[in-house]
Amino acid sequence: MHNDLRECDHIWLNARIASMDPAVDKEYGYLENYALGTKDGLIHALVPMPEVSELSSSIPSTDLHRQWITPGLIDPHTHLVFAGNRANEFEQRLQGVDYQTIAKQGGGIQATVKATRELCEAKLYGLAKQRLQSWLQEGVTTIEIKSGYGLTLADELKQLRVARQLAKELPIRVKTTLLAAHALPPEYQHDADGYIDFVCNTIIPAAVNQGLVDAVDVFCETVGFSKAQSQRVLSTAEQFGLSVKIHAEQLSNQQGAAMAAALGALSADHLEYLDEKGVKAMHAAGTVAILLPGAFYFLHEKQLPPIELLRKYRVPIALASDFNPGTSPLASLQLMLNMACTLFRLTPAEALAGVTRHAAQALGIADECGMIKAGMKADFCCWGIDHPAELAYMVGTHPLRSRILGGQVVSA
Amino acid sequence: MHNDLRECDHIWLNARIASMDPAVDKEYGYLENYALGTKDGLIHALVPMPEVSELSSSIPSTDLHRQWITPGLIDPHTHLVFAGNRANEFEQRLQGVDYQTIAKQGGGIQATVKATRELCEAKLYGLAKQRLQSWLQEGVTTIEIKSGYGLTLADELKQLRVARQLAKELPIRVKTTLLAAHALPPEYQHDADGYIDFVCNTIIPAAVNQGLVDAVDVFCETVGFSKAQSQRVLSTAEQFGLSVKIHAEQLSNQQGAAMAAALGALSADHLEYLDEKGVKAMHAAGTVAILLPGAFYFLHEKQLPPIELLRKYRVPIALASDFNPGTSPLASLQLMLNMACTLFRLTPAEALAGVTRHAAQALGIADECGMIKAGMKADFCCWGIDHPAELAYMVGTHPLRSRILGGQVVSA
Ligand SMILES: [Zn+2]
Ligand SMILES: [Zn+2]
Repeated sequence: MHNDLRECDHIWLNARIASMDPAVDKEYGYLENYALGTKDGLIHALVPMPEVSELSSSIPSTDLHRQWITPGLIDPHTHLVFAGNRANEFEQRLQGVDYQTIAKQGGGIQATVKATRELCEAKLYGLAKQRLQSWLQEGVTTIEIKSGYGLTLADELKQLRVARQLAKELPIRVKTTLLAAHALPPEYQHDADGYIDFVCNTIIPAAVNQGLVDAVDVFCETVGFSKAQSQRVLSTAEQFGLSVKIHAEQLSNQQGAAMAAALGALSADHLEYLDEKGVKAMHAAGTVAILLPGAFYFLHEKQLPPIELLRKYRVPIALASDFNPGTSPLASLQLMLNMACTLFRLTPAEALAGVTRHAAQALGIADECGMIKAGMKADFCCWGIDHPAELAYMVGTHPLRSRILGGQVVSA
Repeated sequence: MHNDLRECDHIWLNARIASMDPAVDKEYGYLENYALGTKDGLIHALVPMPEVSELSSSIPSTDLHRQWITPGLIDPHTHLVFAGNRANEFEQRLQGVDYQTIAKQGGGIQATVKATRELCEAKLYGLAKQRLQSWLQEGVTTIEIKSGYGLTLADELKQLRVARQLAKELPIRVKTTLLAAHALPPEYQHDADGYIDFVCNTIIPAAVNQGLVDAVDVFCETVGFSKAQSQRVLSTAEQFGLSVKIHAEQLSNQQGAAMAAALGALSADHLEYLDEKGVKAMHAAGTVAILLPGAFYFLHEKQLPPIELLRKYRVPIALASDFNPGTSPLASLQLMLNMACTLFRLTPAEALAGVTRHAAQALGIADECGMIKAGMKADFCCWGIDHPAELAYMVGTHPLRSRILGGQVVSA
């Protein structure tokens, strides 16, 4: 028997593996007919089945009967923690009520801010926990969760604590992102710079001190914060040693992505209006492009992100649900795979890389997650499919057979 | 206690009911704070809670604690029974391979016909049964299933038998539709009229004799069958006493919907290119418009169905998944609700009527399904939502709490 397998805690046999390792091949990183061994929560051995003989009965094993394995899926951009929903606005807009009227009624993001502030932490946790089941059932092993519906010190920290608690109590890894610069709170209605001061001087330091935050994000847009304001937030975050990210170029080109790239941002997200200069800046900095086809779909957008330029400059493309009550109430990363192919014309292999290897890179965890490779965390999924392209092709079927987190089977 | 309730087998208490009964109101048919009693598989009593007193302990009851009830959902247009999938073509097209090359490789619908012919009935049943779980989990209580991937006498009947067997073995009602005129089989490559003869003279009579078919459908399109050929098929079906339906005006305007309406068709489906004349003909005949937003989305269509005209002439609008491996591999009626609102700008109430009352009408069962009303079948769902608009607004969450078919709770 292969030496590396002898040392394993558990061995999965007879697998077809989409390793997503570009060292294997540029598409799925296909390993046909392999055994995968785990040890101490990591992937320890990948061995062709013909080299597997005399399996020691002392090592537990699972015969996958040629099921496919992929890395555990990663959703690198969500706004999972919020109260209420905005079905009423959705309905009003379709009944012909205009956006301004809805805003005057206290609708839009301010409705979610109000509801999130009013709900206690335990109930906010309960809502998020219930929603998170959808991600677990689809094979997600790491999720990023942003704040941004509190917009006060206490309520931003409340959202981040809920995100941290989800990671403690449910079998999923969570990366938290402070998005205090998501919208202007009512208290600062005519003082955006004053609010940015508050974010930089008070909220970021407190979140860091309490160990609640892995990265800082900002909504850079005409209806959000200016490039200069965004830069202040992200620069402050960097001084605290945090990773930075940006909501950029969704509705107009503010050159936010290039600004964030210059600061070494992990990702710039949305990017419908990104230009070639921005793409080059992202390439130079190694910044990942996170595309959000759900928001594109839900907002009825026409402007496509510059896929060809991203390909040309080899900017890694990740995909995320952007799950949120206003612009992407779509709790399905598998639907995002389909939408990325159908609406953005990504290939299924690009889409799968977008929720594995590239999503890991967008969260700064490319050295531990997102590929099936010795030394990486043993986060992976087993699927009842005949080809990994099916994960992007079909929606609503339930192909997940098992989900493994740190070497443990955590849900079927 | 209210007399009608005394006679019931089971009572559901403290419900908010979207009855979808237009006699209640034009939107959701909202009954606030009601008790719903069932008897012998039917809805027997709808009583305001204040009128419910001294519940006899001999009648079993369920307290819904203000959960919402809607009619069981109805998917009135699917191609659920097929073998194989076409993920490979999906991937090839996104890699830049053109449609003709794929067709030359034996791709397109002919690939599904070949796979469906080759698979034995038991295995075909197994595939369909597994897929059908998605409908059950989303609250569907009636589904229409078409043949159309056999295109021989034996293989069309095989598909219909599978559909009938699903109804026998799973807790769901099934309406079967013969769609032998779906595509030209290879055996009749240059003889469309000869194949139509075969459909009319052999397949329809056999399907009727064996009690396998509730309706007959035809794909009327430049790439399908002509209006004259379609008319021959549907007229033959009528002579056998069957209901008729049509795939019409999906890619071009063939005036198929008007032709089918003149024959009293239950529904005309797709309808992107339907004109006002066609809308008027459907109105005059009481033909339901079944819109298929999944195919519209998946095919990247730009031409919207004439929603305003359908509203103007009060043609009932139903929605369906059109689930099939080529143009709508989307196994989620709830996604269709969202797509109907997002892509076609239906209101959430119109969308919900589209998968309840109007879907029932499209299947010829409006007198027994699709509304919460005394005398109708007791097919309904209980939902963990705050408003029925949420059913169209959110996707991927799992709001179904219980599904009741003929008065029996059949899955949670
Ligand atoms: Zn976002
Ligand atoms: Zn169809």
